[in-house]
Amino acid sequence: MIVAGHDVLPVAGFRVAGIHAGLKATGMHDMALIVSDRPCAAAGVFTTNRVQAAPVIVDQAVLAGNRDAMRAIVINTTCANACTGDVGIANARRMIALTTDALGIPNESAFVLSTGVIGTHLPMAAIERGIDAAVKALGDDWLGAARGIMTTDTRPKYASVCIETPVGAYTIAGIAKGAGMIAPNMATMLGVIVTDAIVSSSDAQAMLTTVTERSFNRIVIDGDMSTNDTVLLLANGASGIDAHTDWAAFHAGVEAVAAALAKAIVLDGEGATKFITLQISGAATDADAQVIATTIATSPLVKTAFYGGDANWGRIIAAAGRAGVAVDPSALRLSIAIGEPPVSEALLLFEDGMPTAYDEAQAGAIMKTAQIVVLLDCGMGSAQTTLWTCDLSHDYVSVNGHYRS
Amino acid sequence: MIVAGHDVLPVAGFRVAGIHAGLKATGMHDMALIVSDRPCAAAGVFTTNRVQAAPVIVDQAVLAGNRDAMRAIVINTTCANACTGDVGIANARRMIALTTDALGIPNESAFVLSTGVIGTHLPMAAIERGIDAAVKALGDDWLGAARGIMTTDTRPKYASVCIETPVGAYTIAGIAKGAGMIAPNMATMLGVIVTDAIVSSSDAQAMLTTVTERSFNRIVIDGDMSTNDTVLLLANGASGIDAHTDWAAFHAGVEAVAAALAKAIVLDGEGATKFITLQISGAATDADAQVIATTIATSPLVKTAFYGGDANWGRIIAAAGRAGVAVDPSALRLSIAIGEPPVSEALLLFEDGMPTAYDEAQAGAIMKTAQIVVLLDCGMGSAQTTLWTCDLSHDYVSVNGHYRS
Repeated sequence: MIVAGHDVLPVAGFRVAGIHAGLKATGMHDMALIVSDRPCAAAGVFTTNRVQAAPVIVDQAVLAGNRDAMRAIVINTTCANACTGDVGIANARRMIALTTDALGIPNESAFVLSTGVIGTHLPMAAIERGIDAAVKALGDDWLGAARGIMTTDTRPKYASVCIETPVGAYTIAGIAKGAGMIAPNMATMLGVIVTDAIVSSSDAQAMLTTVTERSFNRIVIDGDMSTNDTVLLLANGASGIDAHTDWAAFHAGVEAVAAALAKAIVLDGEGATKFITLQISGAATDADAQVIATTIATSPLVKTAFYGGDANWGRIIAAAGRAGVAVDPSALRLSIAIGEPPVSEALLLFEDGMPTAYDEAQAGAIMKTAQIVVLLDCGMGSAQTTLWTCDLSHDYVSVNGHYRS
Repeated sequence: MIVAGHDVLPVAGFRVAGIHAGLKATGMHDMALIVSDRPCAAAGVFTTNRVQAAPVIVDQAVLAGNRDAMRAIVINTTCANACTGDVGIANARRMIALTTDALGIPNESAFVLSTGVIGTHLPMAAIERGIDAAVKALGDDWLGAARGIMTTDTRPKYASVCIETPVGAYTIAGIAKGAGMIAPNMATMLGVIVTDAIVSSSDAQAMLTTVTERSFNRIVIDGDMSTNDTVLLLANGASGIDAHTDWAAFHAGVEAVAAALAKAIVLDGEGATKFITLQISGAATDADAQVIATTIATSPLVKTAFYGGDANWGRIIAAAGRAGVAVDPSALRLSIAIGEPPVSEALLLFEDGMPTAYDEAQAGAIMKTAQIVVLLDCGMGSAQTTLWTCDLSHDYVSVNGHYRS
């Protein structure tokens, strides 16, 4: 049984901190630290961008060498440590060493995550002071840790679930950041999920890959993808409960946390005013469904129509048509509804190659709500997918016309 | 020799008109008619969107049946006649019949082009009155014809060249419309090019396909592609000069007109404040060059950085990295310059996987100009491409948040 919530439940054996290290001129939190009191099984999923930031390169090497005894994750904002060459690699490794030294844990038992501006070097003096301050501040302040990883985010993002089993309960909790440069394949997104269940690192890795595909890789804000995207999972076993005894429950719990974090990212999309669930069904293949969904979700014309509250089905149909995969206009059926799936009733806008005689006022009323479901049945087969996305507003342009990321 | 200009030179044997048929509530021109006094060799390039508007479907059939004796093109705005089913096909055919009847020319010797809102039926009574008015207004008013095909365009778009040969001169002239929904492969774009040279329809078709690839398919405003895109070429031979005697000159002339129209579309991009020439070189393959260019040109983060006048090379490098093709970050060299190619000097921003020690003020000064060249050498091979694009501004969101297209 899963008990999900928007608070972060304590996770046995983990302590966290979010602090101000002096990286943000505003005085806001800019670093976070997550520490386990015992070795963790670890898993990671990393950006597929060919341009990878130093921490992404370093963490993949660390993970490959130490999947079963990781202890900590140190995270800084404002500087992505991307496009920083050998100095960047050395700085990422030094952040890990400073963290393991300060905590008195083995070398190479910490991950490092960075997010912020590309192409500048980490301010190592401030980072070093920040790590010391974070170690001193370790406690249960998950909200503070979530704040410590925000960049253009306007809200901290965290979620947790408690899994109750016949032999006791364990917890899964997570924090994430990301508000722009979000596309399928985890763009400018950092996510950390921890659990006190007992998990093998190989099972954790396989499951995290699957879960990421169904959560963080299903969100689109602007179609851009960053050099730094990373999702990490640490399992320290402190609860004494073995997740393998009911793996389906564990998998569902991790997916619930990841999906909650992914949706929180879309809800906090730069300038976003609407949360849109895009459900593609009846595609010829899974790949076709994905391409159609992504083409619609990244179309500036579609996104501005949502912003304007206009039931502009023509832009959605045209985007599907240009996706470059098998689409038969006469087989397309497009509906919209208020809220989130499952929806009890939807307004059919388009079928048989033409708009239906729908009521424009009714359609406009749906489009003007803050949560909209778009259902597109391609009528070609049985493949389907779901994407979560947002609209494109004046504020998106303001944020990104003036923020150096 | 080519004499190019921004005025439209008269083209022997062609008469044109732009009129107000009552389709636009503003009273602005909303229809255009182009007529040759003798049969024309014809060529056409059409949208690759799987959802094709009725006029696109009808024109392809007309062209297939009558490549050597076309006489006219009738164009309406405000209604795209797309997603209109059998009624739409019948209306498109009726527009052709009304035009050929009013002109007293053979059946099926006219093309029909429509642009505007998707999913509404043509107001045939107004269209019929408009065709009659346009026939009465036929003359040399190319500027009026260019105005007659505008939708969200803020400026009419026209271009012409005179080709001088040892045995006399002939003219190539064109008009186009398009301001949004523009992506490689001619999105929401109509173009008509006419010439009084003697040309075979088969040579004209091959050449128009090539030229479109190098002009209209090299522009990106928002990455969307419409259901109606069409470029037509009519050659009536009235000059008595055979273009085949110096085909290279003819090809260059058509390409000059097409490129001028394509650039005019970008310059008039919805909300555009900057004209950006994106030159990709050193790609592994032509396809890679194209994908990298398109990924950069459609990135909302890149486009908003241009709007903000920010030399945000990191977003360009990150976009190249996520393009999904072979990119080696350490081999990338990125420069920017003022103006249009060829540029005499460019500011190197990025090489060896890192930003150079460029002067931020100098970079900002370049980015704040209205015409910018971005040069990205991929260092992988010898393939190259050029795209023309624009920035993403608050006005783009305003235009598309409130216009039903």
